[in-house]
Amino acid sequence: AESALLEIGRPTLVPPLPSAHKYSRGYVLVAGGAMAGAASLAADAAIRAGAGYVALAGPEHGEGPLALVQRLAVDPRTLADLLADERVDVAVAGPGLGLNDKAEARLESVLAAGKRLVLDADALTLIAKRGAETLAGLDAPPILTPHEGEFARLFGDISGNKVERAREAARRSGSVIIYKGNDSVVASPDGRAAIAPPAPSWLATAGTGDVLTGIAAARYAATGDPFEAACEAVWLHGAAARMAGPFLIADDLIEALPRALAACL
Amino acid sequence: AESALLEIGRPTLVPPLPSAHKYSRGYVLVAGGAMAGAASLAADAAIRAGAGYVALAGPEHGEGPLALVQRLAVDPRTLADLLADERVDVAVAGPGLGLNDKAEARLESVLAAGKRLVLDADALTLIAKRGAETLAGLDAPPILTPHEGEFARLFGDISGNKVERAREAARRSGSVIIYKGNDSVVASPDGRAAIAPPAPSWLATAGTGDVLTGIAAARYAATGDPFEAACEAVWLHGAAARMAGPFLIADDLIEALPRALAACL
Amino acid sequence: AESALLEIGRPTLVPPLPSAHKYSRGYVLVAGGAMAGAASLAADAAIRAGAGYVALAGPEHGEGPLALVQRLAVDPRTLADLLADERVDVAVAGPGLGLNDKAEARLESVLAAGKRLVLDADALTLIAKRGAETLAGLDAPPILTPHEGEFARLFGDISGNKVERAREAARRSGSVIIYKGNDSVVASPDGRAAIAPPAPSWLATAGTGDVLTGIAAARYAATGDPFEAACEAVWLHGAAARMAGPFLIADDLIEALPRALAACL
Amino acid sequence: AESALLEIGRPTLVPPLPSAHKYSRGYVLVAGGAMAGAASLAADAAIRAGAGYVALAGPEHGEGPLALVQRLAVDPRTLADLLADERVDVAVAGPGLGLNDKAEARLESVLAAGKRLVLDADALTLIAKRGAETLAGLDAPPILTPHEGEFARLFGDISGNKVERAREAARRSGSVIIYKGNDSVVASPDGRAAIAPPAPSWLATAGTGDVLTGIAAARYAATGDPFEAACEAVWLHGAAARMAGPFLIADDLIEALPRALAACL
Repeated sequence: AESALLEIGRPTLVPPLPSAHKYSRGYVLVAGGAMAGAASLAADAAIRAGAGYVALAGPEHGEGPLALVQRLAVDPRTLADLLADERVDVAVAGPGLGLNDKAEARLESVLAAGKRLVLDADALTLIAKRGAETLAGLDAPPILTPHEGEFARLFGDISGNKVERAREAARRSGSVIIYKGNDSVVASPDGRAAIAPPAPSWLATAGTGDVLTGIAAARYAATGDPFEAACEAVWLHGAAARMAGPFLIADDLIEALPRALAACL
Repeated sequence: AESALLEIGRPTLVPPLPSAHKYSRGYVLVAGGAMAGAASLAADAAIRAGAGYVALAGPEHGEGPLALVQRLAVDPRTLADLLADERVDVAVAGPGLGLNDKAEARLESVLAAGKRLVLDADALTLIAKRGAETLAGLDAPPILTPHEGEFARLFGDISGNKVERAREAARRSGSVIIYKGNDSVVASPDGRAAIAPPAPSWLATAGTGDVLTGIAAARYAATGDPFEAACEAVWLHGAAARMAGPFLIADDLIEALPRALAACL
Repeated sequence: AESALLEIGRPTLVPPLPSAHKYSRGYVLVAGGAMAGAASLAADAAIRAGAGYVALAGPEHGEGPLALVQRLAVDPRTLADLLADERVDVAVAGPGLGLNDKAEARLESVLAAGKRLVLDADALTLIAKRGAETLAGLDAPPILTPHEGEFARLFGDISGNKVERAREAARRSGSVIIYKGNDSVVASPDGRAAIAPPAPSWLATAGTGDVLTGIAAARYAATGDPFEAACEAVWLHGAAARMAGPFLIADDLIEALPRALAACL
Repeated sequence: AESALLEIGRPTLVPPLPSAHKYSRGYVLVAGGAMAGAASLAADAAIRAGAGYVALAGPEHGEGPLALVQRLAVDPRTLADLLADERVDVAVAGPGLGLNDKAEARLESVLAAGKRLVLDADALTLIAKRGAETLAGLDAPPILTPHEGEFARLFGDISGNKVERAREAARRSGSVIIYKGNDSVVASPDGRAAIAPPAPSWLATAGTGDVLTGIAAARYAATGDPFEAACEAVWLHGAAARMAGPFLIADDLIEALPRALAACL
């Protein structure tokens, strides 16, 4: 059931219908943790990428536009309560989550919420401990966004080229994999796979992965298709990087997102 | 006493007179509550829309320009004291107010203040419990800004088309109604009614209603006529949305307001 | 000893000498108080107007660029200690100071510091209680920036036109007076007086006076001449308002200052 | 072993390789202290100047882009733990460090970390007490950035012109010296020395030195050569100042950095 390898190109995005409201455009909840900055980057990217409602729920307030809804969630129980809201479409965990017991408990709340998920960073490290195959039972395939090191932690050494490794990882984990790098690869457990054109090497700077995660969450909420969402996110992330120019920092990507998105209308 | 249906067009705004001072241009007090972000959006919009003095009075500090006056008002008594200032022209309640007992008490302070009011969001939900007709006894007609769901909560099912429903709601509640949506309708208890040209569907995102509320408050303070103010606010909100462009977030509307306002001089 | 009435025109500012350092360009200390926003506006305006070093010393942190030095000064004793630094050129009190006993004590520290002073807002109200003539004994003439109401509180009813009243007020108080309004007048106890061209009426909005105070402080520190500084500040303030355009808020003036200043090189 | 005096010109910077990741582009840790603003300026400059990962570790949170990693380090032991991370390339101490016992202890942690160092401001004052020659034993030559006063405190009166004094100071302290001023001089203990073209006198304003320190740290992390890094930092700092224009403040330099850097590609 392996499809041909696609090349990721500019997606076509559609304006909201006249009847749209904020929740119909997607409610993304970002679970914060030890580091408010990283979670804020993901949340800000999600709202900039077109999610209609984004809440950042962590033990302290983050930073972002006023349109970002900040909810204090000091203990994982509060996080679970917020996730129980049926309007939540996609939950994000990983950026700034931390690796201690509290982080484990937060991740547990997210995994148990029955939502579409985007998992990154510390969430991947924590999942590696219990085995990536434990994700296969989720209601909908989550999107995982490992870089090289996280991929190795999650999947050990899979043989083959990067595309083959991504496909195998997607299969094992029942997840859509964005295997990051200069030549990011996206693979779905349903056999679809795609490769991105080379991204600017200026992306090698702190927080750019958190931004990708936020974009992927917004697109997952908008489309409901994790593979499509992942491909769109990779393209938008690369386009924003080209627009942000040399010596970019992660914040610049978020600022460039509206232009990258407008190029897809 | 039903007037012809007007179409909302670009308003004509006048520069302040040489003798103007900050209070003569309007003092808007925004009552904050559970969510500082939403109240901040309303307050920032009010100051950007030309109110000469805007105070945000809530249990925690909000965010905004330095020109925004932030007053801590942890308990409703303090809020009432601030509202007792005779220079206050318009009070706003609703954005981020919350729905618990404290929110009730804050709303009570606002309703009892004898000021012109703009009521939105959580305030509308709380008022629905006691009946929209309870607003009819206020000194001046308040502006209410319900979306579809809030309208239903406030007025149950009124028969007729959107304009007819808005007119009937205005009559029952003695309030100017901005019945929001892609095709917003404004109706006054004195029989005036107007319909807005279609607004960009990009407005379907968190916080844009809070911005409309702030604009309405500034214009109500400037003109003293709640129907005029409501129509102007709807036009300015739509114009700011067109200027902000696709994938706008609520903060972008506030940034675009000066250009929208300048187009009315 | 009354000079002819001057008309305030564009000042000529000079770049720092190659040998300049931050303190030689002027150290301005702004005493904060009850309202951090107003004091921040004054401090931010001072640093933007070319003071080499600006400290904001109040009971809580204010907001501003990172170049603004924030010093907690919860009690007036700490404020006095900071003012004892011989590098401080100009001290500012008034914006956001408050009117209670603590405010009185802070003002006392400022008056006792032996520095050049710029006094505004709440400081003027507090000084009115003890009599404006008490300022005549200061080491250097302070700059006072009363609007109509503050002028009346400070000087009661002086007969004559605005220029005559300003001249008399300057004489009585031994202070340079910026008698604010659409047609601001500056008068010095040494007999000099000047009138400003009409300023945009858009200045009638909260916090614009705080910005004027900050500019005056920076220019007083730079020139050592309070009359010159006051005239320059009034011109720069008006120019920034013209550049900021209609519906300006106080923050916009600070943003426009670099352009207004550059026009004077 | 004295080389000819070089003139500092525009450096040539290279884009990251496709294989780059955030840590390979340099991990800079800035030790904060008494004044969060100064340390934030250094950290923000470092991340804007191309360091792939910048952490600000102080007793309170600083300000900066979301990409800046903020770590609370209330006691020096925590700072030492953060510095023990082998991925840290360059540590910065001085801006906003303070001069009390806690500052001493923080500096001790930095000096003992075995990292490349950039030392400025309060760190230089503290080192002057123990003698600049105590730096000669460090694993790698630190970069010191004294202005005239700090130079005198560190090295007493060395005879000769500014270049000769810088060379002698570099020799004694085993450090690369950026001897700041309108005509900054860079000298290395290996005999290299260079002089900068005159910088805009507008740099005489609070915090510009902190920005230089941050740039130097980023370049030291990128190149591993403290003399090259120091020369590049001086050039970039001057170029950013020219781009920021008259009446610049330190924050403007950081904003101008991307353009200054892009001019070197």
